[in-house]
Amino acid sequence: MNDSIDLHRRHLLLGSAGALASAGLLSVTPHAWAAQTPLPDYVNWKTPGALIVHSDKTLETRREAQGTGLVTSNERLFIRNNLPTPDPAIVADPDAWSVTFQGVKNPRSMTLGELKQLGVETVASVLQCSGNGRAFFPHGASGTQWSVGAAGCVLWTGVPMRLVIEALGGIADGSRYMTSNGGEALPDGLDPKSLVVERSVPLRAVEQALLAWELNGEPLPLAHGGPLRMVLPGFYGVNNVKYVKQVAFSPEQSDAKIQVSGYRIRPIGQSGAPDQPSMWEMNVKSWITRPLQQVKAGRVMIQGVAFGGAKPLLRVEVSTNGGDHWHMARFIGPDLGLHAWRPFLFVADLAPGSYNLASRAIDFEGDMQPRERVENERGYGNNAWLDHAVAVQVV
Amino acid sequence: MNDSIDLHRRHLLLGSAGALASAGLLSVTPHAWAAQTPLPDYVNWKTPGALIVHSDKTLETRREAQGTGLVTSNERLFIRNNLPTPDPAIVADPDAWSVTFQGVKNPRSMTLGELKQLGVETVASVLQCSGNGRAFFPHGASGTQWSVGAAGCVLWTGVPMRLVIEALGGIADGSRYMTSNGGEALPDGLDPKSLVVERSVPLRAVEQALLAWELNGEPLPLAHGGPLRMVLPGFYGVNNVKYVKQVAFSPEQSDAKIQVSGYRIRPIGQSGAPDQPSMWEMNVKSWITRPLQQVKAGRVMIQGVAFGGAKPLLRVEVSTNGGDHWHMARFIGPDLGLHAWRPFLFVADLAPGSYNLASRAIDFEGDMQPRERVENERGYGNNAWLDHAVAVQVV
Repeated sequence: MNDSIDLHRRHLLLGSAGALASAGLLSVTPHAWAAQTPLPDYVNWKTPGALIVHSDKTLETRREAQGTGLVTSNERLFIRNNLPTPDPAIVADPDAWSVTFQGVKNPRSMTLGELKQLGVETVASVLQCSGNGRAFFPHGASGTQWSVGAAGCVLWTGVPMRLVIEALGGIADGSRYMTSNGGEALPDGLDPKSLVVERSVPLRAVEQALLAWELNGEPLPLAHGGPLRMVLPGFYGVNNVKYVKQVAFSPEQSDAKIQVSGYRIRPIGQSGAPDQPSMWEMNVKSWITRPLQQVKAGRVMIQGVAFGGAKPLLRVEVSTNGGDHWHMARFIGPDLGLHAWRPFLFVADLAPGSYNLASRAIDFEGDMQPRERVENERGYGNNAWLDHAVAVQVV
Repeated sequence: MNDSIDLHRRHLLLGSAGALASAGLLSVTPHAWAAQTPLPDYVNWKTPGALIVHSDKTLETRREAQGTGLVTSNERLFIRNNLPTPDPAIVADPDAWSVTFQGVKNPRSMTLGELKQLGVETVASVLQCSGNGRAFFPHGASGTQWSVGAAGCVLWTGVPMRLVIEALGGIADGSRYMTSNGGEALPDGLDPKSLVVERSVPLRAVEQALLAWELNGEPLPLAHGGPLRMVLPGFYGVNNVKYVKQVAFSPEQSDAKIQVSGYRIRPIGQSGAPDQPSMWEMNVKSWITRPLQQVKAGRVMIQGVAFGGAKPLLRVEVSTNGGDHWHMARFIGPDLGLHAWRPFLFVADLAPGSYNLASRAIDFEGDMQPRERVENERGYGNNAWLDHAVAVQVV
């Protein structure tokens, strides 16, 4: 496959951010981003110019708006909701929010006020939609056409699930999964199991899990799952259930559609089924955030973000010639921990010409971003470095 | 000295945040904070309820709004300006901003665009006004009556000064100080030396120094010194010159009033003079951020922030009885590095009654927050644990 041709094709698939950037319509100055579709009311406090509004439930952070940020601000963080946002009344008195715990030795409900008495921890983690990178799939995978911006690295503050479990006497014998259920009202007349956001994860997720009430030091906004969200560092976004009302431990996974057949990796053309891999742990990934368009010849500061997914990140490499040669990049800023992303920098000395800039991350177990995507029906889990490469003109 | 009496007196000095809190008028829910004085136009994008507006140039983060935040958001960060804010035109095209470098082997001007080609780093550091804690001085030190909120921990992105110096051929022989000058227009008819914000720091500050264009991943806002600010981790806020236009290395300190006699520690009643210690490196400090008022008996989550100032933080201790007994607190969240603050937690089991909650931090060289403040004319550098203790009713 010819990288140059491939890069050109992919460039056309980048979505509005990429299209604007490649047309030279976007300045690198964030304040100069043109807002297109207005923000929906429930997220009208976000930075319009930093976001691509795909729909009222799906907003993507522009690639150039990810910049060198160690932490993604609430104002720039993407939105992906499965159901309409609940009534803002649920965040009016957060401490009164009640969660039911089942499948523990002493099942009961606890208010957020009670949960806050059990412990407090802050964790940095990458929040990423399973379909981040879907726009690069050539078969036209259905769903939001995310490029790289259905991801951010944020700080969550809440109580570790292990302390909650301890307070409830431990997990019931025979349990293999933890299932979280969101507090959304479901429309009448439809099968609730086909709509409910109820996700099960294996018990290995519990050690890192947090019931979180703060996002980047602010009370968790309704749009991001306030008053309380199940946060599972290392696991894809869908498992991090918003407005969490029920947490249950059980031998089997939920029988909700979103678990049984949704978020399953399968060959193109196949329907989702329980025997296919579920979108649980994230894979190793990186992408370049600048430059994305034309730059001046000389020292070019190639920057991006990289993370190990569910495993620690080892290093990240950058290529300026579409993967023929790779150079070690340097991390920028402090390491926020196992599940955070790390901004990186590689300084290249580039003469005028066309360049294909690519990055590939490697985790501590030696897993490296592959060159090619794993084709799959719904366009999940794309960490192919070739898809994420950018064509840049140096002048 | 009787701690209880002293705590009561100090409680009256806490300023509007403390007064409101002690009167039970503030909910712990941030959204419920009542805005009092409206925000000045140039900071109208900040969170009104999180700030105390002392004047149009001095805005303090409410103690309860510091919460458990690992990073202080731009919207909550305090403001302390010495001069009126420059015309917003200076942030319209940040890369065109020009800085003159003197006292180097090859003196010249560089644009921000050029500086960005030299290198990129991100550093977390506590930004704190020299007068943070002034409200606790009983002699009525002149200046803004800051309680604890002229401080925040933020992420700066910019180019390390050492790379700039390298590009300029090195520091001129015989230099002992680095002086930064802000780009503010000065009023006609007054002695510029009496007004200009021009601060000198010893060369030991240079290794950590950054010329920063991003704050928490956003382009540096004008209100915080955009387009470019001299950032000196470990040094008091005043040295972190905003809208920096000139940086000079020289054998002597600046002859501007703000350097010669301003920001000098001296006994009460004395005038400022060059032979007195300048407000350079910060000292070790901590304070409790919650609870600040009435709490329910049982498990009480005592939280706060602690930092080593210019030295690494070793540990922080909490007392529930005004300093008679101390307990080791636990840090919350990842360590953002040498100059960041660390949120801490101590869980106390408290029966109904009155409690004096105090915290004291210890740095790696064994320096510990003192019980008593060092009395001084301008109320600078207050890190006395007794002043920062809070009287709490457990019911």
